[in-house]
Amino acid sequence: MLVPLPPTIKPVLEAYLPNHRPNRVWLTLSYAQSLDSRIAAQPGTRTVISHPETKTMTHYIRSRHDAILVGAGTVVADDPKLNCRFNEDNSHHTLRPVVLDPGARWEYMESALRAIADRKEGLAPYIVVLEDTQVKHEQLLRAQGGEIIRVPNSSWPVVIDALRARGIRSVMVEGGAKVINGLLEHGDLIDSLIVTVGPVYLGNQGVEVSPAKHVTLSEVKWWTGTQDSVMCARVTRDLISE
Amino acid sequence: MLVPLPPTIKPVLEAYLPNHRPNRVWLTLSYAQSLDSRIAAQPGTRTVISHPETKTMTHYIRSRHDAILVGAGTVVADDPKLNCRFNEDNSHHTLRPVVLDPGARWEYMESALRAIADRKEGLAPYIVVLEDTQVKHEQLLRAQGGEIIRVPNSSWPVVIDALRARGIRSVMVEGGAKVINGLLEHGDLIDSLIVTVGPVYLGNQGVEVSPAKHVTLSEVKWWTGTQDSVMCARVTRDLISE
Repeated sequence: MLVPLPPTIKPVLEAYLPNHRPNRVWLTLSYAQSLDSRIAAQPGTRTVISHPETKTMTHYIRSRHDAILVGAGTVVADDPKLNCRFNEDNSHHTLRPVVLDPGARWEYMESALRAIADRKEGLAPYIVVLEDTQVKHEQLLRAQGGEIIRVPNSSWPVVIDALRARGIRSVMVEGGAKVINGLLEHGDLIDSLIVTVGPVYLGNQGVEVSPAKHVTLSEVKWWTGTQDSVMCARVTRDLISE
Repeated sequence: MLVPLPPTIKPVLEAYLPNHRPNRVWLTLSYAQSLDSRIAAQPGTRTVISHPETKTMTHYIRSRHDAILVGAGTVVADDPKLNCRFNEDNSHHTLRPVVLDPGARWEYMESALRAIADRKEGLAPYIVVLEDTQVKHEQLLRAQGGEIIRVPNSSWPVVIDALRARGIRSVMVEGGAKVINGLLEHGDLIDSLIVTVGPVYLGNQGVEVSPAKHVTLSEVKWWTGTQDSVMCARVTRDLISE
């Protein structure tokens, strides 16, 4: 069960949520970090950073997107549900999970995502792999309504094109660190950034978000909850590289 | 010139500013970081992260302390003034700069701090060095009212005792990263934490704040300004070590 969405948060988020423009895919980058910019206390582990109300916010943001995208490292480490439990108007859940798994290392058959698709509690995922990769769960996935998407390379423009070709117009990118840092370095692709900062230091052994380049932000708004601060922003188009 | 202090910030800060208790030194840890927990874009450089109003806040916080403490790395890299330009009631500036310089590597003679003491625009610093260290500027410093403080080791309890013996009852610790990370690992010494988060990624080549241990915080309050978010908190006494 989710706690209620704090009423003050919707007006703050609104300008940072997808507004549909033809022939473009809206990309929202959203994650929760500690004060010291860690998304997990150790590699391969899941760490709860955000307050329950900020978790509800995440599900609300998911409800405003066509797809949610994570890297293979995240599904392997966390076995996440990647569904949307924010259901204000009892609308049908149509959030499509997308897993970037170029090397096809993820075991879909044993995953929570497979169980959710089996029970029809969420859409089956799109799994993005490199061309000529054998994937043993392809038949099951197709029967569930999911798909193995084969791409010539896993660059962001190629992945986004493949999703657009399947009718996806908005993608929420949630993690992990490799995906986030990589996307920040292609900041011109990001339409909005929604980052939750939790008041804790996870320490220097944690999994860090910090891109290879200096990235400047604009149109910044903060929302403060019981425990966390949430930053909404856009990436400044003329990136400063150092 | 400082911009005015935003009126909403004083009530938020108040509980995190020194309240004098006999025989104890109040320690406030305060610094500004990027979203990715960098205090500078590169080692040995100074990077402006915070908005002018948050800079005014820093001078206001300084005005509420007896001393401001930084490490030798910071004075070498930044040549800071470490004075207090927040002067609401035209009170006399009595903020004592303290520099942790165990190996006596800092060239005081050429510094902004020396010029300020010469012009009597601020107190001359206390410079903490290890015992038996020769310091060439000791005579000048003493004439200005400063002091070379010799300690058997540069551990936090020893440094704090030395400052208390000189009548200092509150210290604002501002940096750099080595000092901040080291102090966070002795979280039980910290009375309050005031961290400004600026909405920018300085990138993974920057100077990072992240302690070696997990540090949990409590009594968290956020203040949000035009651009930055400021977190006030206490360090939870029963630290979780991982």
